[in-house]
Amino acid sequence: MSGTLSTAAPFGSAAHLSCRECGHTTDLGPTFACEECFGPLEISYDFGTVTREQIEAGPASIWRYAPLLPVPADVATRPTTNPGWTRLVRATNLGRELGLTNLHVKDDSGNPTHSFKDRVVAIAVQAAHAFGYTTLSCSSTGNLAGAVGAAAARAGLDSCVFIPSDLEKEKIVVASVYGGRLIAIDGTYDEVNRFCSELIGDELGEKWGFVNVNLRPYYAEGSKTLAYEIAEQLGWRLPEQIVVPVASGSQLTKIDKGFRELVKLGLVEDTPYKVIGAQGSGCAPVSQAYKDGIDVIRPVRQPDTIAKSLAIGNPADGPYVLDIARRSGGTVEDVTDDEIRAAVKQLARTEGIFAETAGGVTVGVLKKLADAGRLDPEALTVVINSGDGLKTLDAVSDCGPTATIKPSLDAFRATL
Amino acid sequence: MSGTLSTAAPFGSAAHLSCRECGHTTDLGPTFACEECFGPLEISYDFGTVTREQIEAGPASIWRYAPLLPVPADVATRPTTNPGWTRLVRATNLGRELGLTNLHVKDDSGNPTHSFKDRVVAIAVQAAHAFGYTTLSCSSTGNLAGAVGAAAARAGLDSCVFIPSDLEKEKIVVASVYGGRLIAIDGTYDEVNRFCSELIGDELGEKWGFVNVNLRPYYAEGSKTLAYEIAEQLGWRLPEQIVVPVASGSQLTKIDKGFRELVKLGLVEDTPYKVIGAQGSGCAPVSQAYKDGIDVIRPVRQPDTIAKSLAIGNPADGPYVLDIARRSGGTVEDVTDDEIRAAVKQLARTEGIFAETAGGVTVGVLKKLADAGRLDPEALTVVINSGDGLKTLDAVSDCGPTATIKPSLDAFRATL
Repeated sequence: MSGTLSTAAPFGSAAHLSCRECGHTTDLGPTFACEECFGPLEISYDFGTVTREQIEAGPASIWRYAPLLPVPADVATRPTTNPGWTRLVRATNLGRELGLTNLHVKDDSGNPTHSFKDRVVAIAVQAAHAFGYTTLSCSSTGNLAGAVGAAAARAGLDSCVFIPSDLEKEKIVVASVYGGRLIAIDGTYDEVNRFCSELIGDELGEKWGFVNVNLRPYYAEGSKTLAYEIAEQLGWRLPEQIVVPVASGSQLTKIDKGFRELVKLGLVEDTPYKVIGAQGSGCAPVSQAYKDGIDVIRPVRQPDTIAKSLAIGNPADGPYVLDIARRSGGTVEDVTDDEIRAAVKQLARTEGIFAETAGGVTVGVLKKLADAGRLDPEALTVVINSGDGLKTLDAVSDCGPTATIKPSLDAFRATL
Repeated sequence: MSGTLSTAAPFGSAAHLSCRECGHTTDLGPTFACEECFGPLEISYDFGTVTREQIEAGPASIWRYAPLLPVPADVATRPTTNPGWTRLVRATNLGRELGLTNLHVKDDSGNPTHSFKDRVVAIAVQAAHAFGYTTLSCSSTGNLAGAVGAAAARAGLDSCVFIPSDLEKEKIVVASVYGGRLIAIDGTYDEVNRFCSELIGDELGEKWGFVNVNLRPYYAEGSKTLAYEIAEQLGWRLPEQIVVPVASGSQLTKIDKGFRELVKLGLVEDTPYKVIGAQGSGCAPVSQAYKDGIDVIRPVRQPDTIAKSLAIGNPADGPYVLDIARRSGGTVEDVTDDEIRAAVKQLARTEGIFAETAGGVTVGVLKKLADAGRLDPEALTVVINSGDGLKTLDAVSDCGPTATIKPSLDAFRATL
């Protein structure tokens, strides 16, 4: 992989890449694996002083946190999708049903392409600019394809998204409407991923930014903004319990990183919080390892869950999720397809939020733990909805009319 | 219709209802037609002093404008969907293609149920509370059903939505997922509407708030917030050209009202603006009347446009739209289904915004007028996208993969 820095301070306060396994540090570059131990690299910062007032005066998007991200200081003036600053909803009705008196839903369906992926892709775009990449790429089966297509269009980058050719028609439309290249691969999602790895090593992919491969250390930092927003929207304090979906595990890991940064910067008090990971039972390798009390994630070869956006059989950040859940006094739990469907409907019925199946997983786990008495019912609790129900309509396809009638008052009266 | 005021100052600075035809005024109540001339009633206000600073310190939702709306002062603390404060996108890429140097897209797909209807329904909910109605109702073929279902769920109101029974499966899911009553009527949309009118006059509907009938004067005011947000997001100034979709015509009328209020309150300078109405050619009664130079709207009996959310054959506010377009030096124009499809794709490709067909109508009209030299290319221009492409996927169902290949570098190379 190649690429040179193209602007002054393109990464803001980001200082270097450090290996999460051995701690080895290296310069900021388009690389994702430690040269010493092949461990995953993540970004370390030299934060200056950052104040609440400074943040509050910023834009209503993730760019209010630009000083805490690997992006240039003027990022808010650049053409991006301006994701983030989504609603934190005080969920009194849902809380009442679950016996939780202080519940909030962080509703990331309000993002530009209606999933949290807009946050991470927006950071990857800035890294692509910095490294001189003019094509943004990824493999995807859904939310990521739309986020990459939209962000590239807006930023004036080319895009090339790879999908399995048997994807649902709706998802193909969403992946292609932004006008970038969309390549369907005859093969499974694993084969698409393997193909992309080959491509990155070839001269064909040399000048390409794969958001979740060679740009991954930058991309992943976008999830920290969920933590920042939650804390700010709670009035600059940390939640006491938080339920986070687990696909690769990156989102959960970065939310924890975000909270710890806020403490270190003196922006919030250092109060304890429990982090709870949520998976679909049909692809729950991290939940299984948690229950088994082991540190090794056994890959799921044939994921079988309606929460397809979480169906990563071999989650890269799984071990870190286990660490955080155990260290914080949280847990990792999973729910069945029926529980997911019921939770999607319960959230819609109680709070008017129509979540994708991943939101059904987090709300379903919340309910499962609340019912079992495994949550503090009075603790300040946040549950994340990471996407939009319009993208997973099949999950609630049994919804329909209460009654079908002739247009007459008598016919209507008979339905009451 | 009955109903009594249930809280102190439930309508904030709203003073009374006045007839738009004869000027007759009446007390605030659940009524929509003038007792003197049957003309439409709208809300008049006794605004106190309202400052930019006061507004800017408010929440990131339409409630920052609570002092300018018929809602209680504490509305932001009540359980609502908190719509509004959607992105105003500087559309440099689209502007370049259209030859417009100062173009912005007001993207209302960021609302909680992804259309501008969340704005109007949020106001109707407050009126329902004030009048003691516990059931929120409407007839709908799409966006309104979702907005009513979500807002009622969140507010703890019952809801009952009426739809034609032949509606698309996707729309039925969205209309029913929030758990309210959904009644499918065997009949056309006109028959559903007629049935609802009967219901309002019957004891069955006596305690019901039909958002766009007996609550319409309140409901309609929600569209003013589009004007307020656009002006504030432009740095407290009015645009010079604005393209607005026309269904009933209410949105356009209220945007004009909102701009004039801002001028009257001294919040923006009194600079001229041209208002341009946009319709689909398959249901363009207002555009036709404009072209014919007449004041009377000839109803379209069989609407035939892919912009179904705009397909109102007999638009109540049509004459007011004509007035405003003529008075402001704007126009009313329409575009064909092919132009709508092309515009949806052009907006997605250039700005990463996936609009529903109504957004294709406004962007299509913008392009048509720009191509014909009928716009000032350097004027500060705003085009409204009122909804989300995920709800009208059929319009772009020809989108698909650039190529379908085997998972090999050689196969990929052959596509380049």
